[in-house]
Amino acid sequence: MSATSSVRPGHVMSGEMAEQPAVLRRLLAEGAAPIRAVAERIAARQPRFVLLTGRGTSDNAALYAKYLLEIQLGKPCGLTSMSTTTAYEAKPDLTDCLVIAVSQSGGSPDLVASTTTAREAGATTLAVTNNPESPLALASEFHIDVLAGPEKALPATKTYTAELLALYLFVEGLRGGDGAGAAHRLPELAEGILARHEEIRQLAARYRFAERMVLTSRGYGYPTAKEAALKLMETSYIPALSYSGADLLHGPLAMVDNVSPVIAIVTDGRGGKALQPVLDRLRDRGADLVVFGPKAQVDAASAGFVLPTDGVPEELQPILEIIPLQLLAYEVTLARGQDPDAPRALAKVTETR
Amino acid sequence: MSATSSVRPGHVMSGEMAEQPAVLRRLLAEGAAPIRAVAERIAARQPRFVLLTGRGTSDNAALYAKYLLEIQLGKPCGLTSMSTTTAYEAKPDLTDCLVIAVSQSGGSPDLVASTTTAREAGATTLAVTNNPESPLALASEFHIDVLAGPEKALPATKTYTAELLALYLFVEGLRGGDGAGAAHRLPELAEGILARHEEIRQLAARYRFAERMVLTSRGYGYPTAKEAALKLMETSYIPALSYSGADLLHGPLAMVDNVSPVIAIVTDGRGGKALQPVLDRLRDRGADLVVFGPKAQVDAASAGFVLPTDGVPEELQPILEIIPLQLLAYEVTLARGQDPDAPRALAKVTETR
Repeated sequence: MSATSSVRPGHVMSGEMAEQPAVLRRLLAEGAAPIRAVAERIAARQPRFVLLTGRGTSDNAALYAKYLLEIQLGKPCGLTSMSTTTAYEAKPDLTDCLVIAVSQSGGSPDLVASTTTAREAGATTLAVTNNPESPLALASEFHIDVLAGPEKALPATKTYTAELLALYLFVEGLRGGDGAGAAHRLPELAEGILARHEEIRQLAARYRFAERMVLTSRGYGYPTAKEAALKLMETSYIPALSYSGADLLHGPLAMVDNVSPVIAIVTDGRGGKALQPVLDRLRDRGADLVVFGPKAQVDAASAGFVLPTDGVPEELQPILEIIPLQLLAYEVTLARGQDPDAPRALAKVTETR
Repeated sequence: MSATSSVRPGHVMSGEMAEQPAVLRRLLAEGAAPIRAVAERIAARQPRFVLLTGRGTSDNAALYAKYLLEIQLGKPCGLTSMSTTTAYEAKPDLTDCLVIAVSQSGGSPDLVASTTTAREAGATTLAVTNNPESPLALASEFHIDVLAGPEKALPATKTYTAELLALYLFVEGLRGGDGAGAAHRLPELAEGILARHEEIRQLAARYRFAERMVLTSRGYGYPTAKEAALKLMETSYIPALSYSGADLLHGPLAMVDNVSPVIAIVTDGRGGKALQPVLDRLRDRGADLVVFGPKAQVDAASAGFVLPTDGVPEELQPILEIIPLQLLAYEVTLARGQDPDAPRALAKVTETR
């Protein structure tokens, strides 16, 4: 399952990024019905609280689901601090709780342990993975397969967008909706973004010598900021800090100046609107502000990448907006003479306990 | 309330750090009884799920409370994504929920708005602030005063340790315990740490030219890693990334090498034990590893600061372990010729909405 070298640097990651439209299409065609069935059975349990668990990229997918569940369903949610059960052996009362564990491999022992504990503590457990035979899928009462096919590059890309879409379809299912309706344009729009790879190659030159980067967003775009920062760090090794716009104003803003480039992910909707004062503040400070978002927002920034947001509900935009940022991490890494397929020190299945 | 200049750079922050033993002593003497009374009234409501809210430093205090509530009380918890109510106007059902908002000033409009929404949605609301007359204290059904006295330096120090102790006493109160017992030695131990300022001054030289830093911990020490990173960033502007040890292995480890200094906060207990494989991995990679923790851990590292952990329960160690890291942020900032009292771009009460 691991690729330690490649013929052309980055060709594994590149191929997997390019698969994303096909993966989204497959998930809509083959995954939507089983996901709806799982959602209906879980909705019948009437969970009152939702806990979400993941590590790395899958933790960012879990955060996206948290926004969906809170905003669309009004369910109070929390992200698990896994060590409370794995290291401290806490015995929580999880009656009426739904616990969702998200993991590409489904193989991380701490996720399996915390899911097993949650199930014993009375929770309804759901695993969202790319491997229905994985220990995590087997440990959970319910399972959703994100159907992304084998992922071999160390930086996860297609499994991230597949996890987001699967979680979106699941939450739509909990609401009793069809869900696939608004999502049917995603594969085609993703193709359109991938076809603009050259724009990203040009943008990447800006960061070739960057010593640090700051990524910010608000609301639905915040998981994208976190995932883009992780992708940049694990491929290019540039320290990339991500903050919700509001948190950026509470301290870290002191660090942003004309030598700290800022990338803002601006969703077209309420999250983007709530980010506006932060963008104004960054411009006032003379920050190098690059925007991934609607055209008007990109035009007002130092540079950027226009996202196709017309007719795409805000809650679905994260599935598209990460794609150019994956490409950016890939291109910045190549520009720095490194291989995106083989980051130092990483194993595909991380065995944290 | 704000200090824009000072006679001697950093004298305001320095004075407030030095007040911490007195603040802890006052809180134990005058705060413990009212906190226990609030805890008893809230315990009678039998909340099943706890949501915690804060920004910046107070968000790190909220995270500490999350560990306490999950481990000591077995209550499922979540940290609020505030924009879901302020920007997206989500209408959650918060019956049986306790919502705790932590804020030094009690003045941030988004905290007031989200607390008001939570109260309307059926939650029991508790504000933990340093100002009983603040809008947040008035908007909440219950209030705990951390009794830290006016804080004028922009980087929060004494209000952080006071928030931690107040939250500890509150959770002890929920458990029906006395709480102050194990905590009574904290003021004296804090004095002992402050008296070792010169050790930190020497350690600070190591980071004078650092371009980035990584902070890590696990369990109870994780909020300390996040708060230390925030302190370093808002005073010295060094990009400081914080990760739980487990998350560090899922990606960002690629970024750590012999030019990225790592500071590990090692609690004496289960969290420190769970961090061990991460420390081994960092040493294998030749990282410059500086440890704040028990003597044996410091001896095995490149350098460090020995914390007095003998007889201090792991859950109380965070109140002490942040103090040398506050001193470190202060000294690194002075070494870089900057003024810790007046970070660029920050206001004491941040008006995010």
